[in-house]
Amino acid sequence: MAEFDLIELIRNRAATRNDVVLGIGDDAALLHVPAGHELVVTADTLNAGVHFPGDTAPADVGWKALAANLSDLASMGARPAWCTLSLSLPQADAGWLDGFLDGFLGLAEAHGIALAGGDTTRGPLSVAVTAMGLVETGAALRRDRARVGDDVWVTGTLGDAAAALVLGGHVPPPSGAAPPAVAAAIAAQLADRLRRPTPRVEAGRALLGLAHACVDVSDGLLADLGHVCRRSGVGAEVAIDALPASAALRAAFGEQRHALQAAGGDDYELCFTAPPMLREAVALALEQAGVDGTRIGRIVAGAGVRAVDAQGAPWQSTHAGYEHFG
Amino acid sequence: MAEFDLIELIRNRAATRNDVVLGIGDDAALLHVPAGHELVVTADTLNAGVHFPGDTAPADVGWKALAANLSDLASMGARPAWCTLSLSLPQADAGWLDGFLDGFLGLAEAHGIALAGGDTTRGPLSVAVTAMGLVETGAALRRDRARVGDDVWVTGTLGDAAAALVLGGHVPPPSGAAPPAVAAAIAAQLADRLRRPTPRVEAGRALLGLAHACVDVSDGLLADLGHVCRRSGVGAEVAIDALPASAALRAAFGEQRHALQAAGGDDYELCFTAPPMLREAVALALEQAGVDGTRIGRIVAGAGVRAVDAQGAPWQSTHAGYEHFG
Repeated sequence: MAEFDLIELIRNRAATRNDVVLGIGDDAALLHVPAGHELVVTADTLNAGVHFPGDTAPADVGWKALAANLSDLASMGARPAWCTLSLSLPQADAGWLDGFLDGFLGLAEAHGIALAGGDTTRGPLSVAVTAMGLVETGAALRRDRARVGDDVWVTGTLGDAAAALVLGGHVPPPSGAAPPAVAAAIAAQLADRLRRPTPRVEAGRALLGLAHACVDVSDGLLADLGHVCRRSGVGAEVAIDALPASAALRAAFGEQRHALQAAGGDDYELCFTAPPMLREAVALALEQAGVDGTRIGRIVAGAGVRAVDAQGAPWQSTHAGYEHFG
Repeated sequence: MAEFDLIELIRNRAATRNDVVLGIGDDAALLHVPAGHELVVTADTLNAGVHFPGDTAPADVGWKALAANLSDLASMGARPAWCTLSLSLPQADAGWLDGFLDGFLGLAEAHGIALAGGDTTRGPLSVAVTAMGLVETGAALRRDRARVGDDVWVTGTLGDAAAALVLGGHVPPPSGAAPPAVAAAIAAQLADRLRRPTPRVEAGRALLGLAHACVDVSDGLLADLGHVCRRSGVGAEVAIDALPASAALRAAFGEQRHALQAAGGDDYELCFTAPPMLREAVALALEQAGVDGTRIGRIVAGAGVRAVDAQGAPWQSTHAGYEHFG
């Protein structure tokens, strides 16, 4: 199978949109950006053996590669519109590509995004995606807008993906001991969060005009909130006990869950700050977006993120956040 | 060196533009697209050992990764504006990255482009770039607009990069025999065209309103002109003897040059079609853009590209075009 056949296979399956003036098949795509909007652009790459095990199902690779990018658009409050895909494959394997597209285009379709271009090349398995979205001019959520006195919120639950990495033997458990024995149904629930993260696109949109600052939780909550603090010139206090946990995570890891939630990463939830007077409005907006929101702390003067336990004592993570060049 | 340090190194060196509302350092970039323009987007990846030898100087890798993308924008007649860079590195090597940025940002600066985002990850050396440009609404040059009777033109000269690949021992020569012995100065001239291709951005802009169809020559002239024919529903006749050649290529390969010019690829020149009545206007536009233009054939009814020699007899390439999954 030749490169042009692979591109043809992709083109035949990719949906388009009215604002794609010219899609796959020319030297570049032509896209129409509506007046009154800013273009939002993010690029994230997943490499086999680094971001996912080499034997991951191709549909899961495809889903996650796009989900990681959509999560970045979500954290800006953007409406996803288009993406490009640069796919490096060790060999031209139509079966693998079909599976990959099941996941990638399945998620793209769910969000009404058009795959507008890209390339396929020979090389170690690597998926480089650039996602583009639109946001009303001046309205985007940013990392550098947190203010002292803001509540710190997080959507959904944290720690499931990190727990799945531990149970899969990919990273050591926070305790340093062996991973806990866990019922298969619970392990499967946790693994699903790692395999198929849900980018919080609707939540990001709902938070426009309400949230001050926003970031997606990919490196680990404390690290990502740290980015917000650094960019905003503020500090944060987080109550570790308040971090929202799934029933599966509680069942599998009990009190050990905290380290996974605070530093595990791969959650693709949104962490955002908003003024206390908007608590009810935020809660309502998230409810309408179909996701839970939990207040986990507040923005304070100073710098850095201070985590405290249920007794208010400083809390230290025993679990390292994900660091590509650690 | 950690991932965040690498990103900081990149951010400190990257230039910005007024239309970058928010650049490197958030979850995504915010960009302002001016009214009356379409967004032009292309994505191209270079992998070590596939698109360049693993020991290529990092500055050359950086230059070429961006040049390949700018060439795609040029072929649409777009003005380059922004790019993202997804860089996979086997290890976090600040020295390598600095060299890479010399080439990448040097070319970006020459075209006034802002590096607006991207990511760095661990993995086999791979450079995935998405380049974005702007073109006046409805004015873009496309592959699917060639018309019967059009002249076929090409900018600059063809075959130097393919010659350098032969002299470097990376691909066999068209003759099937050993590569010719070539003076060092001539070999260096040819190698420069492979290392540092010149994207024909000014030429692409100058051809707006003049050219009917346009493509950049990256896979090889006959293959790329074939894309134009297929998309436009026409055929083409090309006089192999008319293909513009550098003095260095003539000196090194004599009559063997034709195969390198017709099928070698990696030229990053523009191949375009335009009506004969615009010959003088095209020549003048290219002159003002600082590049030579040569008429090499014409668009005919039918399908496919027919190459003929100086006697008008059918010409067959003995040199395969570049095919990633051949």
